[in-house]
Amino acid sequence: MNLNPVTPAFLETLQSVLPDRCLRPADPRYLEEPRGRWKGQAGAIVAPDSTEQVAAVLKAANAARVPVVPYGGGTGLVGGQIMADGPAPLLLSLERMTKIRALYPEENVMVADAGAILQDIHEAALAADRLFPMSIAAKGSARIGGCLATNAGGVNVLRYGNTRDLALGLEAVLPDGRIWNGLTRLRKDNTGYDLRDLLIGSEGTLGVITAAALKLAPRPAGEGTALIVVDSPAAALTLLSLARDHMGEGVSAFELIHGTGLEFLAEKLPQLRQPFAEAPEWMVLIDVGLARGIDPATALENLFVAGLEAGLVSDGLIAQSQQQRQDFWEIREQIPEANRLVGSISSHDISLPLSTIADFITKGGDILRRMGDFRINCFGHLGDGNLHYNVFPAKGRQKSDYLDQRDAVQRAVHDLVDEFDGSFSAEHGVGRLKVADLERYGDPVKLQMMRSIKTAFDPNGILNPGAVLRA
Amino acid sequence: MNLNPVTPAFLETLQSVLPDRCLRPADPRYLEEPRGRWKGQAGAIVAPDSTEQVAAVLKAANAARVPVVPYGGGTGLVGGQIMADGPAPLLLSLERMTKIRALYPEENVMVADAGAILQDIHEAALAADRLFPMSIAAKGSARIGGCLATNAGGVNVLRYGNTRDLALGLEAVLPDGRIWNGLTRLRKDNTGYDLRDLLIGSEGTLGVITAAALKLAPRPAGEGTALIVVDSPAAALTLLSLARDHMGEGVSAFELIHGTGLEFLAEKLPQLRQPFAEAPEWMVLIDVGLARGIDPATALENLFVAGLEAGLVSDGLIAQSQQQRQDFWEIREQIPEANRLVGSISSHDISLPLSTIADFITKGGDILRRMGDFRINCFGHLGDGNLHYNVFPAKGRQKSDYLDQRDAVQRAVHDLVDEFDGSFSAEHGVGRLKVADLERYGDPVKLQMMRSIKTAFDPNGILNPGAVLRA
Repeated sequence: MNLNPVTPAFLETLQSVLPDRCLRPADPRYLEEPRGRWKGQAGAIVAPDSTEQVAAVLKAANAARVPVVPYGGGTGLVGGQIMADGPAPLLLSLERMTKIRALYPEENVMVADAGAILQDIHEAALAADRLFPMSIAAKGSARIGGCLATNAGGVNVLRYGNTRDLALGLEAVLPDGRIWNGLTRLRKDNTGYDLRDLLIGSEGTLGVITAAALKLAPRPAGEGTALIVVDSPAAALTLLSLARDHMGEGVSAFELIHGTGLEFLAEKLPQLRQPFAEAPEWMVLIDVGLARGIDPATALENLFVAGLEAGLVSDGLIAQSQQQRQDFWEIREQIPEANRLVGSISSHDISLPLSTIADFITKGGDILRRMGDFRINCFGHLGDGNLHYNVFPAKGRQKSDYLDQRDAVQRAVHDLVDEFDGSFSAEHGVGRLKVADLERYGDPVKLQMMRSIKTAFDPNGILNPGAVLRA
Repeated sequence: MNLNPVTPAFLETLQSVLPDRCLRPADPRYLEEPRGRWKGQAGAIVAPDSTEQVAAVLKAANAARVPVVPYGGGTGLVGGQIMADGPAPLLLSLERMTKIRALYPEENVMVADAGAILQDIHEAALAADRLFPMSIAAKGSARIGGCLATNAGGVNVLRYGNTRDLALGLEAVLPDGRIWNGLTRLRKDNTGYDLRDLLIGSEGTLGVITAAALKLAPRPAGEGTALIVVDSPAAALTLLSLARDHMGEGVSAFELIHGTGLEFLAEKLPQLRQPFAEAPEWMVLIDVGLARGIDPATALENLFVAGLEAGLVSDGLIAQSQQQRQDFWEIREQIPEANRLVGSISSHDISLPLSTIADFITKGGDILRRMGDFRINCFGHLGDGNLHYNVFPAKGRQKSDYLDQRDAVQRAVHDLVDEFDGSFSAEHGVGRLKVADLERYGDPVKLQMMRSIKTAFDPNGILNPGAVLRA
């Protein structure tokens, strides 16, 4: 595509359609990303106040063939918000559009501007005695527009679905400035093609989401948490089945933890209390939220007993207080930090069909053992089939000792994932980091249709060029 | 578009790519639809054995510019499966592709051919102690491919979502014969645009779905049903909120019934036992499926008591046996039959934002009262905001007395729905019946994007021409 960088003349055009307060200084924080892999560039940064201003900006950029990078909280892990090369783009930040537009507790619906911070959405829902269940580690800075654009996942997907499943309607601006008003609060509406789900997960390449109608959930009457030692990943999966037989949709989270995670915690974050005297090889962290008339701790005890009888579990702790629930979760949530401190050779956000996970873990271990001396920390959202399968140096060695093996490790893991009909990106998206993976592992017809859709929405290719699809 | 009818030469091409058994005689049943509004036409009817054969057929039709009408169970209510005019099309029936390809109880996943009958899918799931929760009255003949193409709804949407929400992956053939293999069983997969949800609900205009990976659900440990007299639609909605506070996702169905429904049953199906000695004005039918350790009848009693204390309900029956549950459901399920026997002037499958429903019912009644002497039977899936708002002759008068008012009634109802940000088609789709409604009430930018997508997928316009979008 023939794109042009931001020029002084284009800046003048922007000034003619935007109030001065919407033009931001080129603060370097917009050009960094959490893992420090790339440095971005920007010819200008704008933060419109309104959907109409977003439309005016896109109309101008489309006329001038200037690339536009939509920007939410900047917390994406695959470089979707960072354009490192090509003509200097316009960075379009939603940071000034942060309103909760409306809340309908009786409908379990909230309508929010795309720039609203995820945590503010959580708090607004709680203030109405409701739950917005999608939650990720970056919730304090991630914006809902970015969560929608990337179809963010997190710990409650098992029960409540991905971000996609929590959106009823969207408002978005198309690359040429047309505004699509699809901000419906309806649960059922079969009137034409599903533009909503097409924009969700398109990572800012088809349109800029400016607002969303979000599903809320009632708060469960009682909640409980258990940390249970399981014999194997296969036993963990059977326990999950059992848990759902016992508690139905009441199982909110089902997280797998490996002993390597506890080992890393002991090594790098020794102040954190270890849950078991002797670190087990495999554990699951189970969170439940149940209806009235049933005590979560009792339900978890019953599950534990059933697991014992079925020979699946050998030890376990059931939280007796809110504090203990938080302590158990702290263990799970500090594992990524311990990983960061150890320093991974290669990290993978993969998903697999549930029934293949145990087999995958065995085969993955075998393959990596043949390739070298690694430690594997495999943990994550087991209930969704989503593993964070991260490969680390052997004890006493450094990440830098393995630089020449990094690509081979990544390739071996992704090849195996592909062999098992899994995904090389479960929840982080494609961004710019995984464009080549999508080309390698994606269905070729799907890629062709994605290109056709991109052309239909964005014939000049101005929106987030190079993300998802090669520019 | 320049389309050609099926010709003898085209039939020869079909014969060269399909075994003889796949060419069907022109049985008139393919050209009828349940409400008898239109007669279809077909130049030929084919029923391929395999995805590859579907691909060969579409490739040939695309090359010859012959229109293709995809055909599932033929149960659609908006004429999506019927092409009444234009060049005689090829009717492509999925009836020979009916296999359950695989079942993974431990994953809660089933993979089925698009031609599998919905009821067979229910039974296969039950045989594995699982539930495929999407259920509609036409389940004995509807095929899952058609349910997906139209995003069918039904009585369990409140808990389990529309058909869209129950699909993990699809296999589909594009209009030019390319096969998209998107048959994933993954719960999380953020690798590019969501083609799945684009095909779902596109009513056979973008591609022909040939198979799907479907989500199953665990069977609830205990189920219960209650029929509760409520003071008003507003009270019914507050009771729904209360029910979800008590039982969370355990509320499977929440159906509104109006006294007119009972009146019609008494009039036309007097053998059916009336639930209350004196017919109340408004009732709700509540179905729950709860986790272990909680008795559904007790939970429903607690809800009833809470409803009494809140001044929402005045009477109620809680089913004490499986037979009684069926009897309560029989009342709800026979209302459409009673409606048919009375004969409606105009029927509407509408949805509304939940918090506006009570107001809509009041205003709709006022408007219709000013227009003439009608009886309104307003009932349906209240929990989803989906009402079947049907308008009937006054007692002693006939449908035929109102012929000249029919269009005005429909227009008045749909205008009011639009004013309340509702939908003129909650679960039946657009088909050919509601193309003008979509043009009138749909967002204009949405319609433009739908046309762009249609062109990107089907540049020759061969697939189901005239459905959803005007040909």
